[in-house]
Amino acid sequence: MSGDIEQLKLRLREFAAVRDWDQFHSPKNLSMALIAEAAELVEHFQWLTEAQSTDLKPDKLAEVEAELADIFIYLIRTADKLDIDLVAAAKKKIEHNEQKYPAEQVRGSAKKYTEY
Amino acid sequence: MSGDIEQLKLRLREFAAVRDWDQFHSPKNLSMALIAEAAELVEHFQWLTEAQSTDLKPDKLAEVEAELADIFIYLIRTADKLDIDLVAAAKKKIEHNEQKYPAEQVRGSAKKYTEY
Amino acid sequence: MSGDIEQLKLRLREFAAVRDWDQFHSPKNLSMALIAEAAELVEHFQWLTEAQSTDLKPDKLAEVEAELADIFIYLIRTADKLDIDLVAAAKKKIEHNEQKYPAEQVRGSAKKYTEY
Amino acid sequence: MSGDIEQLKLRLREFAAVRDWDQFHSPKNLSMALIAEAAELVEHFQWLTEAQSTDLKPDKLAEVEAELADIFIYLIRTADKLDIDLVAAAKKKIEHNEQKYPAEQVRGSAKKYTEY
Repeated sequence: MSGDIEQLKLRLREFAAVRDWDQFHSPKNLSMALIAEAAELVEHFQWLTEAQSTDLKPDKLAEVEAELADIFIYLIRTADKLDIDLVAAAKKKIEHNEQKYPAEQVRGSAKKYTEY
Repeated sequence: MSGDIEQLKLRLREFAAVRDWDQFHSPKNLSMALIAEAAELVEHFQWLTEAQSTDLKPDKLAEVEAELADIFIYLIRTADKLDIDLVAAAKKKIEHNEQKYPAEQVRGSAKKYTEY
Repeated sequence: MSGDIEQLKLRLREFAAVRDWDQFHSPKNLSMALIAEAAELVEHFQWLTEAQSTDLKPDKLAEVEAELADIFIYLIRTADKLDIDLVAAAKKKIEHNEQKYPAEQVRGSAKKYTEY
Repeated sequence: MSGDIEQLKLRLREFAAVRDWDQFHSPKNLSMALIAEAAELVEHFQWLTEAQSTDLKPDKLAEVEAELADIFIYLIRTADKLDIDLVAAAKKKIEHNEQKYPAEQVRGSAKKYTEY
């Protein structure tokens, strides 16, 4: 796993251990915490247009940054608890997607998106 | 940003560009895709006990790994679109949490979790 | 509670009882099932524009209808398990919102939405 | 549709109209608001055991009631915008589930839940 992610993983492990919070961090519970943080991200964007969501004011951007951090933290914790390598998993999934959606075939039509 | 995450970011950028899918990747839309993937993770755990969620069979673990990958992918895409450094953001948030929940004060009681 | 919701509640209770599934229906688990269904709704809309989301083709509309049904079903189950009257709760919340956002004050500006 | 739900629907329509908020209530946006409220429900339960989630203290129960109300409100709004009858949709889905999971076949084994 990535050096940076590895470091964050160990630091989060320590963070939970010294607070005796590890007992609460089952994958089931962590998945709930993760989606709750994902929803706080969604909440920032729910009444914005797509264009507005690309052009946030500095204070909103800082809040969104903190939400992304929370999601990342719970993602790393969940992966750690299940002994999953996030970077390897992402690479595998991207390769899968590259084969599933060949560029020359989906380009322009982008059927996945416009089938509605 | 982390070398590994940086690489994934560039690869995902390319993936979207060659498919002309970048037009769909507003932060608003990406937050929806991210939470939809987070929900697929939740779905794996919803009827399991906490203990069961820590001890998944190999085929279920592989599915969960793919969900974590999807969440990670959309997280990286969202951060890229908003020019946010995920690793720096996580570090900042962990430091914030370390001060907000001093170990010597919350240990044992873990009030945040047991106030219910 | 509403006659119709009351009937659905009793029918869902029976549905779970005869399958011996009541054991899985803790409020914690039901909240996970509910958000997983809400995410399937989100997934239908994630790559659509707002305008497209208001004008669905018949087959997509039927799928969205089924997602709304699933959300409603888990909402009724959760309320039943916690002995909460959904209609009374909604009325109370609407009254609360009417006082929180006085029409003459928020109209036009709609600050809640445009503070971004 | 149910008399009670019909009444809530009309009241919510009026609530949005007098505030000129209808412009924000596309199904896409409403689905985001709905899942954000569902996540607030999840958040109440994320660190609780299943047993604790069935036995909430009065003040927590009141908060959970308000979350259920918010989910219900956005569910009714979304259905209204898409001209979907929630009660009819739920009945149809329950009938579908009754056939999909015959009691005599799934009872005891509850395979849907224990396949993990």
